[in-house]
Amino acid sequence: MTQTHPMIGRNLRIDSDRLWQSLMDMAKIGPGVAGGNNRQALTDDDSTARHLFQSWCEAEGLSLNTDKMGNMFARREGSDASLPPVMVGSHLDTQPTGGKYDGPLGVLAALEIIRSLNEAGLTTRHPIEVVNWTNEEGCRFAPPMMASGVFAGVHDLDWAYDRTDAAGARFGDELERIGWVGDAAVGGRPVAAFFELHIEQGPILEDSKTDIGVVTHGQGLNWIRVTLTGKEAHTGSTPMPSRVNAGLGMAQITVLAHQIALAHAPHAVGAVGHCEIFPNSTNIIPGKAIFTIDFRSPDLAVIAAMHDELRTGASAIAKTLGLGIDFELAGAFDPVAFDPACIDRVRAAADRLGYSHMDLVSGAGHDAFWMSRVAPTAMIMCPCVDGLSHNEAEEISQDWAAASANVLFHAVVETAGLVSDD
Amino acid sequence: MTQTHPMIGRNLRIDSDRLWQSLMDMAKIGPGVAGGNNRQALTDDDSTARHLFQSWCEAEGLSLNTDKMGNMFARREGSDASLPPVMVGSHLDTQPTGGKYDGPLGVLAALEIIRSLNEAGLTTRHPIEVVNWTNEEGCRFAPPMMASGVFAGVHDLDWAYDRTDAAGARFGDELERIGWVGDAAVGGRPVAAFFELHIEQGPILEDSKTDIGVVTHGQGLNWIRVTLTGKEAHTGSTPMPSRVNAGLGMAQITVLAHQIALAHAPHAVGAVGHCEIFPNSTNIIPGKAIFTIDFRSPDLAVIAAMHDELRTGASAIAKTLGLGIDFELAGAFDPVAFDPACIDRVRAAADRLGYSHMDLVSGAGHDAFWMSRVAPTAMIMCPCVDGLSHNEAEEISQDWAAASANVLFHAVVETAGLVSDD
Repeated sequence: MTQTHPMIGRNLRIDSDRLWQSLMDMAKIGPGVAGGNNRQALTDDDSTARHLFQSWCEAEGLSLNTDKMGNMFARREGSDASLPPVMVGSHLDTQPTGGKYDGPLGVLAALEIIRSLNEAGLTTRHPIEVVNWTNEEGCRFAPPMMASGVFAGVHDLDWAYDRTDAAGARFGDELERIGWVGDAAVGGRPVAAFFELHIEQGPILEDSKTDIGVVTHGQGLNWIRVTLTGKEAHTGSTPMPSRVNAGLGMAQITVLAHQIALAHAPHAVGAVGHCEIFPNSTNIIPGKAIFTIDFRSPDLAVIAAMHDELRTGASAIAKTLGLGIDFELAGAFDPVAFDPACIDRVRAAADRLGYSHMDLVSGAGHDAFWMSRVAPTAMIMCPCVDGLSHNEAEEISQDWAAASANVLFHAVVETAGLVSDD
Repeated sequence: MTQTHPMIGRNLRIDSDRLWQSLMDMAKIGPGVAGGNNRQALTDDDSTARHLFQSWCEAEGLSLNTDKMGNMFARREGSDASLPPVMVGSHLDTQPTGGKYDGPLGVLAALEIIRSLNEAGLTTRHPIEVVNWTNEEGCRFAPPMMASGVFAGVHDLDWAYDRTDAAGARFGDELERIGWVGDAAVGGRPVAAFFELHIEQGPILEDSKTDIGVVTHGQGLNWIRVTLTGKEAHTGSTPMPSRVNAGLGMAQITVLAHQIALAHAPHAVGAVGHCEIFPNSTNIIPGKAIFTIDFRSPDLAVIAAMHDELRTGASAIAKTLGLGIDFELAGAFDPVAFDPACIDRVRAAADRLGYSHMDLVSGAGHDAFWMSRVAPTAMIMCPCVDGLSHNEAEEISQDWAAASANVLFHAVVETAGLVSDD
């Protein structure tokens, strides 16, 4: 680690009111029905939001470079044109019943860094690029984190263009329709580092009254879809020993999945969020059950162990009950370990600014997960009220936003390097 | 008990081929899509089936009396006009994907008794009435056993007329449309006894290779609908201790319901056949669960005990998990105890004829349940393949049908009394 530049002291702060005002202004575009936002990717509202963001960037003298996935990179030059940029940002698209902060906080805090640097007349050695990633949510066009995935070489451009929404519209066509197909190639260029600020979307920071989450890892996951086959029978005229009850098997395996996750505390989690029984009639013993177990951990070996324990235990339950059982891996994502040097800069920034902080594992996916494959990456989280997200009632305080944006500011400037006067 | 008449010996038998042929002829009306029947109440096919039954009754010299609910009573006079009739029968309507035997076996075996008596030139002291009850299944017009319920004074005639099907058609209008509103008052007249032969709709007789089920009781039931209220949260970003998982509570209570039923062996049964979780998405902890527990027993005190144990245990589970819990009694039916003298006659008939038999508790509801309120009643069951019913694949053997019809024959004739030559 280099010595911290003397300018990067406690007095280097963003403008909390200006950041908050930008969040409120952005939230006017694509309003929801209950105080939040419905600004899904590649809608007219998405385009309007991009134009507003562009105008703000241009007012700060940034040059906008948009790539063929519609990813927007607003660049503030550094003192050394040979150095790759430090990127910082998130996404402006939302869920259909989304909040005002999931995404926009990360983009607008990045913009606020630029505004603060301009105001202070400071120059960095590396260029800084404020990024708005296209279609992080994936609610209209699956998968989520689509355009950062193309940038990081995880997905092909043509494959992404061919994704369709529920009405059959192609991603590529819709991107063109709203006028945001850029000229730049997607990815394939060096990135010095990537930082993303995001709301936690969970209750840990608020519950522990901690200002800043220092995200060290992203959870990986296995989605295990289980199908149990029993025998439909009348609930009245079938004696208990004659029953082959798929619903009972599902219940026992649901309890087992919970126990397995608890046995891998503190970071592992597990639950059954999806289940169906057939024919789902009060007076018929379920002849079939289909349900999906969601196991997550920041440790790939733990995910594999939970998966194995589930298969073994569920098979034993099925055997005891006389049920047929079938497993399908319905989803899988490897855990992410963020860059230790970037993480250290986040932690040091929080210390320097006097904010309480704790290490966090991100349970939800973010663009930073893909970016960690091509650049040193870290994430910062701020609390959100009641852990609520993907919900129009999503809420944060202005103080939480300012604290986390200040930490982002310090970590980014530390990484980009301030040009010394001497 | 009176002495068995010397004519009622092992040689008094129905004609197995004739009974089977009538079953096959009836099954041609309202064929299903998979070898069974779709002959729902008050459809044109129901009317056609009634006309066929009527023609068979008239060919045997019976007088047909139809009541205002469309219940058909085909009467063979006895020697003593002052005595009330012995009734015997079941129903000709079927489920939408029903079998050929659930209902028709009981009606056509009753008709076969008349044919056999006529053939043998035998006279009974009591009149015998072969009954076809309207709308036993209740699949088109709820509730099941509707018209026997009106006969027994459980339901009002006007209330029954006002029941509507899914398309909004009234029961009363449809009964009139198919031409089967009779002149007779519904019920309110003395009945010496009622006997009903039915397929078991469960696996006990076939599994134990027993010819005849002597039904001593009908199970009562409680349907307990439970609503659990937790908190929707992200499956990734919500730590295990922060979860308020309604789906986990449902799983634990489903296991509990099974354990409670087992603890009241051998006659009690319990299962969850209906369940829903919300929002039912793989990556969201269920915030709500609604499910229904079906407890049955031939003993009212056992049903009450199971209900109490469920409420106590489920409340404790909800408290431990931090869930809100609400209970609703979604259905209830008191157990039925059939008439000891009628039961004895069924058992004696099986012994006399050399058939193996066992006592059974009926898990499903039948017209005999309501009739037991107004007349000494008993039921006879014959095995069915694999316990399958309410399914077009429902199957029985001709031998099973004949054996059970012979037992019905002897029990009915014993009750009605043969007129002695001396």
